[in-house]
Amino acid sequence: MKDLIEVHKDQFVEELQEFLRIQSISALSEHKEDVKTAARFLADAFERIGMEHIELVETEGHPIVYADWLHAEGKPTVLIYGHYDVQPADPLNLWETPPFDPVVRDGKIYARGATDDKGQLFMYVKALQLLKEKNGELPVNIKFCIEGEEELASPHLPPFIEENQEKLAADAVLISDTSFIDVNQPAICTSLRGALALELKVKTANTDLHSGSYGGGVPNAIHSLTKIVDSFHDRNGRIAVENFYEGVPEPTNELKREVAAIPFNEAQTKDQFGIQALFGEEGFTFQEQTGIRPTLEINGITGGFQGEGIKTIIPSEASAKISCRLVGDQNPQEVYERIEEHIQSHKPSGATVELHQFIKAKPVSLDSQTMMIQKAADAYEAVYGVRPLFPKEGGSIPIVEVFSRVLNVPVVLMGFGLPSENLHAPNEHFHLNNFTRGMETIGHYLESL
Amino acid sequence: MKDLIEVHKDQFVEELQEFLRIQSISALSEHKEDVKTAARFLADAFERIGMEHIELVETEGHPIVYADWLHAEGKPTVLIYGHYDVQPADPLNLWETPPFDPVVRDGKIYARGATDDKGQLFMYVKALQLLKEKNGELPVNIKFCIEGEEELASPHLPPFIEENQEKLAADAVLISDTSFIDVNQPAICTSLRGALALELKVKTANTDLHSGSYGGGVPNAIHSLTKIVDSFHDRNGRIAVENFYEGVPEPTNELKREVAAIPFNEAQTKDQFGIQALFGEEGFTFQEQTGIRPTLEINGITGGFQGEGIKTIIPSEASAKISCRLVGDQNPQEVYERIEEHIQSHKPSGATVELHQFIKAKPVSLDSQTMMIQKAADAYEAVYGVRPLFPKEGGSIPIVEVFSRVLNVPVVLMGFGLPSENLHAPNEHFHLNNFTRGMETIGHYLESL
Repeated sequence: MKDLIEVHKDQFVEELQEFLRIQSISALSEHKEDVKTAARFLADAFERIGMEHIELVETEGHPIVYADWLHAEGKPTVLIYGHYDVQPADPLNLWETPPFDPVVRDGKIYARGATDDKGQLFMYVKALQLLKEKNGELPVNIKFCIEGEEELASPHLPPFIEENQEKLAADAVLISDTSFIDVNQPAICTSLRGALALELKVKTANTDLHSGSYGGGVPNAIHSLTKIVDSFHDRNGRIAVENFYEGVPEPTNELKREVAAIPFNEAQTKDQFGIQALFGEEGFTFQEQTGIRPTLEINGITGGFQGEGIKTIIPSEASAKISCRLVGDQNPQEVYERIEEHIQSHKPSGATVELHQFIKAKPVSLDSQTMMIQKAADAYEAVYGVRPLFPKEGGSIPIVEVFSRVLNVPVVLMGFGLPSENLHAPNEHFHLNNFTRGMETIGHYLESL
Repeated sequence: MKDLIEVHKDQFVEELQEFLRIQSISALSEHKEDVKTAARFLADAFERIGMEHIELVETEGHPIVYADWLHAEGKPTVLIYGHYDVQPADPLNLWETPPFDPVVRDGKIYARGATDDKGQLFMYVKALQLLKEKNGELPVNIKFCIEGEEELASPHLPPFIEENQEKLAADAVLISDTSFIDVNQPAICTSLRGALALELKVKTANTDLHSGSYGGGVPNAIHSLTKIVDSFHDRNGRIAVENFYEGVPEPTNELKREVAAIPFNEAQTKDQFGIQALFGEEGFTFQEQTGIRPTLEINGITGGFQGEGIKTIIPSEASAKISCRLVGDQNPQEVYERIEEHIQSHKPSGATVELHQFIKAKPVSLDSQTMMIQKAADAYEAVYGVRPLFPKEGGSIPIVEVFSRVLNVPVVLMGFGLPSENLHAPNEHFHLNNFTRGMETIGHYLESL
């Protein structure tokens, strides 16, 4: 397999570049056609490697791409999940090379979606192609279920899974959308935080007012918004929304030990991202804060004059994008309602608020001792020479909880990204070394089943 | 004069529309040429009415337009000041008709700059034209000193005035850039607040970070900024910057009575602007809050993701535009330094801040009993049948303090705008009724000197 990968590597990188050039930003309506183009690219790629029953399943949003190959009689069936949509690319001025013009530099491929998740997803297509080239057939039965709305928190995939339980039935769900601990330490994630996202709009008047004539005597929408935003946390970084922590498990000593086992280099993280001082909920370590504790973060804020220089207005409207990471038994809908109550009771006089909900996803926990996960760990060890750790990830892949619950099978989060690869940020990239070794690991894993 | 105005009115409105069509937004560098076009339009207009010594005085920013007519021997000299630049027009989506496509509706002309200040400035050009048409000459000596940087707080006009004291020497400075109390109550403003404007940028990292992997454990630039912004005021609306109120006079009972004489209809203001509840410094009336008390207001805020939907990042940068109105003996430079100290001592751990200063202007107070102001009051009374009040304006015209101090003459703030005319906001307009009666009042005033 290793030799075969070496032969085809350059060709595979070129094909990946083609995939990365497609601006499949699911969040932006002007890219709706691009998202579809990416789905078609994938369907064509499946066809070329001999997959069958290829379908673009239309949804109210972006299509789901299904394909299968079910000729490995008596062998297990693996359902591969991934996503072909990407995050928006702004702020564009911080990219060293354009986000949709993939470039290879120093053994890394730079582009939006390089590591999250096109690069990782494309490894499966190519690993299967090579397995077929090598053996004339695949070692297991394969089903692909790939979506274009992961960055929107998968609004249409859960009903599709619910309605197609038989079609999607498998012995394991295999996902590569997570990352190593660092370049020499692979990881199989066994816990994901849930998510909740919303937009808060504050209005204080029907028009912006002159700050000379009215300033000092009327409410200011930005003041109102910042007062609400600042009330979300106490001075110790703890979330001040009443009952927010309901359902958050008190970390046991066992869990604390497990989390502490995940290496974290504070000096290196600070240096890499130009961070002066870390900041988080008092009484918890960085690994706990980002792995097993919930968060409430403002992702964007806007209000009033946005141009150069100054405009002396009292702004009448301001808004903030807010998202939470949830853990344990926190229920996204309940948390949303608590935030809503908090906002209503903390909004200053004269301000009206409007809330809009985007994402809801439940937290999920997986058992690292299942055979399907242990065999994945063996495959990593065979290729990388290091046995993976089983970290608790801070991110959310909402669909993991749905696959796990509805199909009732182990989900194997076999990631090949690195935490330094700027996912969701400018200059996202993917190490080509992991692109090729990832294929090798996948091949190894599927052959071992 | 009234009959002559009636004859020419339509022609004058057409010419004003031509003036308003020029996008002379001084704050936006892409409109630099448009600003110059407006200066030339004015110079041509001066030439057509027989003004002499017309000059476009170049500055490092936008040009000053000078012109004079000095043949009224033995008569006083009046220096007319105004500005041909306008505020930016955004948010564009809130304009009912495009800001630079002037339209007459219900006796009002709608366009950016209609009342502030092109419409009011143009009245002088046309009033002088009619005075000449009527008498063959002007009743007083006239000097025009018109700038294109008022909306930037006049960075280059003060040195020009300092260096040209003899050229600009006059018996009064006449300015129409203020407004009536309401449609039936003219006003000559005798107090203007000073101004200070700055931009605050907060940085917490060199890149946006994924809110899953890092959320909860690293500083968030928006949280840091909103914490600083929220610290500027206490819960009673009082500014919490240490020593901010130094130099602010304790309002005497006499001053309180004078301010209270200015009518204010709370219900009407709330209704007109869709304001649920007024908000301001506790212990002061609306008229006091907006006339004789200082302010600190956020005019704009930006940070993180600005697109549709959600992007789950921890933003690394956020910024706010801040402006203050100052009164009494508050010194803009000292206030700036106090705000800087406040920010430095209130910025959360992990945040670096950068401050940029835009505007500094001293507050000014004028004596309503001078002859030049009393004769202006007579002119209003003759045309409108009502004697003007002498309000304390909340806005700033930084140059008034400079004219008053350097030329050492009375400044007559003879405004013809209305407070409801949306200056600095979408759908700015000017009542044509005041455009014509303004000319009449100006004619009356100049003939009376």
